[in-house]
Amino acid sequence: MERPFDEELKGLKAKILEMAAYAEESIAFAIRCLKERNGELVSEIMRREESINHLEIEIDELCMRLLALRQPMAADLRFITSAMKISSDLERIGDQAVNIIERTIEILRHPQLKPLIDIPRMAGLAQKMVRDAISAFINGDDRLALDVCERDDQVDQLNDQVFRELLTFMMEDPETITRAVDLILVGRHLERIADHATNISEDVIYMVKGKTIKHHNEANRALDAPPAEKP
Amino acid sequence: MERPFDEELKGLKAKILEMAAYAEESIAFAIRCLKERNGELVSEIMRREESINHLEIEIDELCMRLLALRQPMAADLRFITSAMKISSDLERIGDQAVNIIERTIEILRHPQLKPLIDIPRMAGLAQKMVRDAISAFINGDDRLALDVCERDDQVDQLNDQVFRELLTFMMEDPETITRAVDLILVGRHLERIADHATNISEDVIYMVKGKTIKHHNEANRALDAPPAEKP
Repeated sequence: MERPFDEELKGLKAKILEMAAYAEESIAFAIRCLKERNGELVSEIMRREESINHLEIEIDELCMRLLALRQPMAADLRFITSAMKISSDLERIGDQAVNIIERTIEILRHPQLKPLIDIPRMAGLAQKMVRDAISAFINGDDRLALDVCERDDQVDQLNDQVFRELLTFMMEDPETITRAVDLILVGRHLERIADHATNISEDVIYMVKGKTIKHHNEANRALDAPPAEKP
Repeated sequence: MERPFDEELKGLKAKILEMAAYAEESIAFAIRCLKERNGELVSEIMRREESINHLEIEIDELCMRLLALRQPMAADLRFITSAMKISSDLERIGDQAVNIIERTIEILRHPQLKPLIDIPRMAGLAQKMVRDAISAFINGDDRLALDVCERDDQVDQLNDQVFRELLTFMMEDPETITRAVDLILVGRHLERIADHATNISEDVIYMVKGKTIKHHNEANRALDAPPAEKP
């Protein structure tokens, strides 16, 4: 038989899924807006941003209520504290999508610099990382979560490539500077989205395993490579 | 008479203070490194980054233990969940300081573009916001926390100004492009640090008042101004 508490946890999962769907859609709309040069999608993103913000507050309140009234232990406790952290990452992913649309509005004032290939690819990777991180959370799948963490490097590498290519554009033709800087910033925002998906995945691994993998990779990276190597 | 729980909460406060001190120092070192063109400070920042990462894990473990064993209610519960969120913001502030030092290492490969004035000012403001946000947390001072939130706009404006000035530099002299883009990114990282201090302050207000002010400003801003106005 199910406890009423299980019903409440299901409700919490449903809210996280809803929030994640809005966050993913925001990324997709922002990049479509940039790629198709279609400013009409801006209002879609702003609407989702508002829903995301409401959901963050609702999820926080629900988690606090569950912690206070149900006094959960072990796995339930880790599930609830993870949900709080994940909702805060999803909210910041929504913010990054808004940042991308802000840059895009600037970019659309000028003629197209070049057909975009790597930025939409980065966006696709980042969006998939968000989806998989949330699916790992819902299903308690620590292997999928680890896989998401490992994909972060691909996004970083693509961003590095985009960055260097845009620098070359600017140096060859100073007319392109404003647009190229805006595209560099879009790349950065996508990289941040992938970072948030990685944070979510680290939380999932902690939730499932009861121990953290946070900072292991960072520490290794810091020892292996001089900090200057990352763009 | 003090409960053993009060001792544990004091221990938690002490850890947050220690983590915040490292985060603040990292920002200060990163900007000194940039301003004084002194690469020797890099190791100081990397050392603090490592301490910050350890503390984040320790604080998380302590909070989980307190939630499980003490089953706190009301104000105590809000204090502990706020501490978890704040430690995650402090960790990201540490990351931003590392990002600044990565850009700085690139910048120091080239001659100085111009004496830096606005970027160190931004850094000073952001650092003070972090310090005050943490002091608001420790003292349960929601007025100071609100004051920190209000200062976020100053940092955004300065960043806007830095951004436009650097664009002008690049357009006038393409030789400056690489350095200018790196400085733009430093400005972005400082803006993110101020955002994290704002997040911490919002958590403090929730902790003290038991209700959130999150997203109120954002919603107003979104209605007042088109999204394109923010850099």
